[in-house]
Amino acid sequence: MADQKKTLGVVLYPDFEILDVCGPVEMFGNCTEQVELKTISHRAGPVRSTQGVAMHAEFGLADAPKLDMILLPGGNGTLTEVGNQPFLAWLRERCAAAELVMTVCSGSAILAVAGLLDGRRATTNKAWFKTLTEGTPAVRWVSEARWVEDGKFVTSSGVSAGIDMALAVIASRFGAETSELLATMTEYEWHRDAGWDPFARVHGLV
Amino acid sequence: MADQKKTLGVVLYPDFEILDVCGPVEMFGNCTEQVELKTISHRAGPVRSTQGVAMHAEFGLADAPKLDMILLPGGNGTLTEVGNQPFLAWLRERCAAAELVMTVCSGSAILAVAGLLDGRRATTNKAWFKTLTEGTPAVRWVSEARWVEDGKFVTSSGVSAGIDMALAVIASRFGAETSELLATMTEYEWHRDAGWDPFARVHGLV
Repeated sequence: MADQKKTLGVVLYPDFEILDVCGPVEMFGNCTEQVELKTISHRAGPVRSTQGVAMHAEFGLADAPKLDMILLPGGNGTLTEVGNQPFLAWLRERCAAAELVMTVCSGSAILAVAGLLDGRRATTNKAWFKTLTEGTPAVRWVSEARWVEDGKFVTSSGVSAGIDMALAVIASRFGAETSELLATMTEYEWHRDAGWDPFARVHGLV
Repeated sequence: MADQKKTLGVVLYPDFEILDVCGPVEMFGNCTEQVELKTISHRAGPVRSTQGVAMHAEFGLADAPKLDMILLPGGNGTLTEVGNQPFLAWLRERCAAAELVMTVCSGSAILAVAGLLDGRRATTNKAWFKTLTEGTPAVRWVSEARWVEDGKFVTSSGVSAGIDMALAVIASRFGAETSELLATMTEYEWHRDAGWDPFARVHGLV
């Protein structure tokens, strides 16, 4: 199986949201036969999350290995990264070469500003939906969705929605039984319906 | 508020389960007025999780600051740590001085082997419940519970149960409205009932 393993690049940046990363990482990281995770940030070393704990990036952008799949989290740092041109250029290059690109929360706003979601359906977190989407009219933003899949881009709603997105992606790529096993193992009651989104109503979007 | 902040020690060890840590960290890390998080491991530096990504420990056991609260995760590394006498001694000392000790998944088995749960009600993950509990008959193990609170010890079931435990602890200590806000912000449908545990049935424990 080793040769068939996919490399999933987990992209970190200062002030990322910890559960945006570690929800999907819990699920993909337990797909040990199918996926190998690599953590990447602007530079290798510790990267501090908004929640105060740091994750360790193995690679900087410049020396990141080839990535089959990409996970881009959201967080307060989004506000800085949407103006980080070298990072946006790196995302354009790496997303073009990847077969699957996933975002959680405001991560989709970074892809949108990079122009990578033009003409595509996508979602983002619901508490800041209007702010996050207003500058990118070429994206077909979906205001009520737990996650949205359009081509190789899968964008999810806020924070914990990344866990449901990950299980859906794993089910479609590696088999539904794998996701069922992961959800049971992690004692997680997952939302299998991409349209389940009570938070759209909470925030007056529907 | 600065003087009233509680220090929450997030304890890491090699081969910990990433969501055991980052579920509760998402919630406590957003209680910025009430809590300050510190990551601690055997030694400062990167600590690899079972899922392949590493978190950064700011402190080693020897130089960890005073801890008001402790979070101890589970994971495959539990099997090693239950035999790590210096670590068990450190936990005895630090748990005695703390006002609140929380575990996720197999983390409670480490406290149990350390003798810290003798005579107390506690739970652990349901897939490995019998294995994790069989050597510690002095603990009043609860086979059906999302989490169990007994004195200053709050033990939760497998992996994602730590998120519900965290929200319950935050509700009781910092106010229910804080937990409601956190759950909405992170778009998390939380289980408010400590007795909710469908996984006990899945694994034939009830």
